[in-house]
Amino acid sequence: MTERILGPVHPTSAAKSALRPLFLGAVTFAPDSLLGECQARNATRTLPHCVEQLEAAGALDNLRRVTGEVDGDRRNMWFADSDVYKTLEAAAWQLGRDPGDAELRAFLDTTAALVAKAQEDDGYLNSYFTVDKPDLKWRELHWSHELYCAGHLIQAAVAAARAGVGAQLVTVARRFADLIVERFGSVEDVDGHPEIETALVELYRVTGHRPYLELALRFLDLRGRGLLDGERFGSRYLQDHVPVREADEVAGHVVRQLYLLAGVVDVAVETRDDALLEAARRLWADAFGAKTYLTGAQGSRHRDEAFGDPYELPPDRAYGETCAAIASFQWNWRLLLATGEGKYADEMERALYNAIAGSTALDGTHFFYANPLHLRTGHDGTHEDAPSQRLPWYSCACCPPNLARLVASLSGYVATADPGGLQVHLYAAGTIQTTVDGADVRVETRTRYPWDGRVELTVTASAPFMLSLRVPGWAEGALIDGVPAEVRDGYAEVRRDWTGGTTVTLELPMPARIVRPHPRIDAVRGCAAVTRGPLVYCLEQADLPDGVTLEDVRIDPAASFSGASLPDVPVALTTRGRIEVPASGELYGAGSVMPGEPVELTAVPYFLWGNREPGPMRVWLPVATE
Amino acid sequence: MTERILGPVHPTSAAKSALRPLFLGAVTFAPDSLLGECQARNATRTLPHCVEQLEAAGALDNLRRVTGEVDGDRRNMWFADSDVYKTLEAAAWQLGRDPGDAELRAFLDTTAALVAKAQEDDGYLNSYFTVDKPDLKWRELHWSHELYCAGHLIQAAVAAARAGVGAQLVTVARRFADLIVERFGSVEDVDGHPEIETALVELYRVTGHRPYLELALRFLDLRGRGLLDGERFGSRYLQDHVPVREADEVAGHVVRQLYLLAGVVDVAVETRDDALLEAARRLWADAFGAKTYLTGAQGSRHRDEAFGDPYELPPDRAYGETCAAIASFQWNWRLLLATGEGKYADEMERALYNAIAGSTALDGTHFFYANPLHLRTGHDGTHEDAPSQRLPWYSCACCPPNLARLVASLSGYVATADPGGLQVHLYAAGTIQTTVDGADVRVETRTRYPWDGRVELTVTASAPFMLSLRVPGWAEGALIDGVPAEVRDGYAEVRRDWTGGTTVTLELPMPARIVRPHPRIDAVRGCAAVTRGPLVYCLEQADLPDGVTLEDVRIDPAASFSGASLPDVPVALTTRGRIEVPASGELYGAGSVMPGEPVELTAVPYFLWGNREPGPMRVWLPVATE
Repeated sequence: MTERILGPVHPTSAAKSALRPLFLGAVTFAPDSLLGECQARNATRTLPHCVEQLEAAGALDNLRRVTGEVDGDRRNMWFADSDVYKTLEAAAWQLGRDPGDAELRAFLDTTAALVAKAQEDDGYLNSYFTVDKPDLKWRELHWSHELYCAGHLIQAAVAAARAGVGAQLVTVARRFADLIVERFGSVEDVDGHPEIETALVELYRVTGHRPYLELALRFLDLRGRGLLDGERFGSRYLQDHVPVREADEVAGHVVRQLYLLAGVVDVAVETRDDALLEAARRLWADAFGAKTYLTGAQGSRHRDEAFGDPYELPPDRAYGETCAAIASFQWNWRLLLATGEGKYADEMERALYNAIAGSTALDGTHFFYANPLHLRTGHDGTHEDAPSQRLPWYSCACCPPNLARLVASLSGYVATADPGGLQVHLYAAGTIQTTVDGADVRVETRTRYPWDGRVELTVTASAPFMLSLRVPGWAEGALIDGVPAEVRDGYAEVRRDWTGGTTVTLELPMPARIVRPHPRIDAVRGCAAVTRGPLVYCLEQADLPDGVTLEDVRIDPAASFSGASLPDVPVALTTRGRIEVPASGELYGAGSVMPGEPVELTAVPYFLWGNREPGPMRVWLPVATE
Repeated sequence: MTERILGPVHPTSAAKSALRPLFLGAVTFAPDSLLGECQARNATRTLPHCVEQLEAAGALDNLRRVTGEVDGDRRNMWFADSDVYKTLEAAAWQLGRDPGDAELRAFLDTTAALVAKAQEDDGYLNSYFTVDKPDLKWRELHWSHELYCAGHLIQAAVAAARAGVGAQLVTVARRFADLIVERFGSVEDVDGHPEIETALVELYRVTGHRPYLELALRFLDLRGRGLLDGERFGSRYLQDHVPVREADEVAGHVVRQLYLLAGVVDVAVETRDDALLEAARRLWADAFGAKTYLTGAQGSRHRDEAFGDPYELPPDRAYGETCAAIASFQWNWRLLLATGEGKYADEMERALYNAIAGSTALDGTHFFYANPLHLRTGHDGTHEDAPSQRLPWYSCACCPPNLARLVASLSGYVATADPGGLQVHLYAAGTIQTTVDGADVRVETRTRYPWDGRVELTVTASAPFMLSLRVPGWAEGALIDGVPAEVRDGYAEVRRDWTGGTTVTLELPMPARIVRPHPRIDAVRGCAAVTRGPLVYCLEQADLPDGVTLEDVRIDPAASFSGASLPDVPVALTTRGRIEVPASGELYGAGSVMPGEPVELTAVPYFLWGNREPGPMRVWLPVATE
């Protein structure tokens, strides 16, 4: 019964959690739904591609160097074991949902065996330090990523344990975790790259072994005391400049900050530590109040892959690492479970349909690492991880397998239950089959979401319960069965007699909307963006008439939009804009433009950009002069 | 006779150069002129500070490790010898102008002796490779900076030779240069960091030894063929992606690109290679047409200290390295000499009075490395070389001694001669004493420039000559003796009977001006800046009323300005602006502001910012909504 498998992030019954996740198999997406297509592509294209690339890039050979199966130099990053672990985690979730994939199971079993063989007698496991730097083991945690890699191993093992596959992986991870508890229970040390914290809590959830939880708490409370050598990026980069309980702003390397905050919420709910949860909520307010892109991307600086100052959100130099958007999704999920507040689900949705979805090409085998909101005419990104096209792999290959593990477990993030109720957070055509207070509940969802805001849910249940439907912050005038929805904390509550099957229709109006930036976001002053439902739209050079340069295009916020359909684009938006050509080449002077010629504009969803020939792209469009 | 000393960049008589520099001592600044104060502060504060810091940071000890005078670990960057050489160059120019500074001469002599002692028998000289990496000598030029350091040694020796001090330094540099000619005359190798090219041409100019010039040409023509390992920043970073003769855009690490282009012009004029000069002019058009800040700063990216895409000019993330502005000044000087066109002098002036002048604190001992045009409310730059205050020194200490050598030789960049004429490019109160076609010429300049645009030049000469006075591009309605000036290529020509002393009055109107950015500079769309004469102005939090946040200040382009005087600020500008507070905290939504309250604004010259308490600063101010 795959339906009984737990998904990612499953608080214990003792945890202080407003909502409870469903079983992983409780939700299935219809094959022709966007999320269903996404999961299918992940299974058939992305996951096999990751397996291939782990081989090609040497990540598996690095482990075989430990076991003596291969000779030669190490290849790839020193923390590339984590790419293997994330792929294993993805495979475990995928097999949990679809145990019939023999090839994937073979990969999982073979690789788990390899990992087990590469483990040292005392439980230590790291292909770089074991072979290349044995003397430095545990000694340079500010850069070593040893506990980061251990964290991803543990996450893979947690997935394997929940999915009932790869038992060997669980043994390996526990042995390593026990060594870590022994080693770090008394010394004052933390890892430069958080991940172990959330992983240890999840392992505690699987095993009930409390020392894992206690060590996670210990790592959180030791952080921010300057234990780490910040080297050239400083201690903020490592979130080691201030204890998380005292912090009032997100700072430094985004993925590190967000993985840490996932751990903060995990520990807070399991230890029922309200002050710790409050710290996470405070940092959320900073992150989402002043440091998040319209697409849900985070990270304004390439130099140190970091958050910028408040409102420092350049669209062209957006770093917006794919892993950061995934981490944001995971962190918001944890906050949603803890609090039941819809604003966290709103941010999950924003990241999912824009920054995350956009990072993978339609072919499922090419990926963005950075996710800018503007690719300028004349852009040359060949020299950095910000090319104008998605690449098949990266020298630091953290993102592709991270996408694979998220998408493989995506059905785990759709709905939750609490005593007396079922909450639906993400809408996709498909089925939810679960229990509420012991009674069987089945929800059939029919919708073209996110292309259309009409969601029909046919609910069958043997007992009464409260159905809570998320009404996203962008949805004005939402209707339930034709009546204006009453929304509280982001949800509309529906109580019906469910016996015999009752259909509830949620209508989320999805007009094309013009969005303006907060007045302090300097980098996009005088610009507007187009959104529709949860989707951010963009203009691509490919859709402009010949001879028109994207940089000269202006939007008219008063003009109306109409929908259109393009190949691979179910809903494109057309509107009438203007072309304003610079009146002179003078870099600083009058700054004037020639009177604007009208031009027909076609905007496509941001997540689909860059799937045609490479070329300029803009989310934020300058508003035409009066 | 210090007047007969040649200054920096002195083409041979065989060179194809439109203009000829004067002797270094031909120009003296009045002590109370801005440039005079600047040079005095450099001599009394900056230069002694550099000498102290070379000692404190270990740059001199690194050389003493070679000679066996000190033990212990190397400190500082592997290319820190160049900091010593730049300080020696500064000392040489300073002693050339003021031979009486015994302390400085002692530093020069002692350090030259140390350098000589650190030189290997075959002429090789590099404290890092000699002691720490002898096996890697000349083997990893993409990062080694060996020829870069050699270049700065040669520049110091050229200054010493011209100033008639530190003869030992000249011997050392020639021995090393001869080794370099021998080593690199046949192999196909270039240095990752240009500098040797311009240095070799200058050494050729001093010695007449043609192989130096030939090797400089060889280095230029070998570049752009992918000889260097670009590592993570790629070959563009090193300008190794395209031969300079074929390049049509400046790219990569700004200082590298500009030092290379200084060498390009030097080689072009000495070899009379018009195609090579044309390449430099083409790249100039790109750099100054789309990749230069209003302050003359260049470099839009922190990550790789690089030029951005065209019009990618974020004011907050401006890297604008001090060394880049110095390099731009030097490159423009070479183009000015080669062509006689005023646009190059305009860019020298823009960089000098803004990016360069602003990098040094009023105390002469604190410096900016990066020179942003916007420090946001909430900025934290503690973790990178972009603090909100100038620092006394940097771990990579390239900038402070670079400032010292430029300012010590600044009088060499003021005026030139050609057959039949004298050209004045930079205005400062003081004296020019030179010859034109063999006849003695004396020009007494009285002016408060750059605070006032009235420049009175009293010229005495025994023979007729053409006086060319630069009329900057910003100066509309310039008058000469009350008559509208006829300006050609940036100069107004004045022919008078100079016998007995004739006064010419140039009036450059200096109203406060509102400047708008080119419509493609996205990062400052909807903003305006204030300039007056050559000076860019900025707003600092320190000048705002309590409770007003700089980020909420709006400028009214129609409002008038009036001048005011503040401590250390001869001309501040006051105007009436507005405060527009965001109407909501919503990051993306209506983007509206509360109706604007009027506020009195005081703008100060950009180059004086950050001399009070640290705080927010803006050059570009959003324009008030209608």
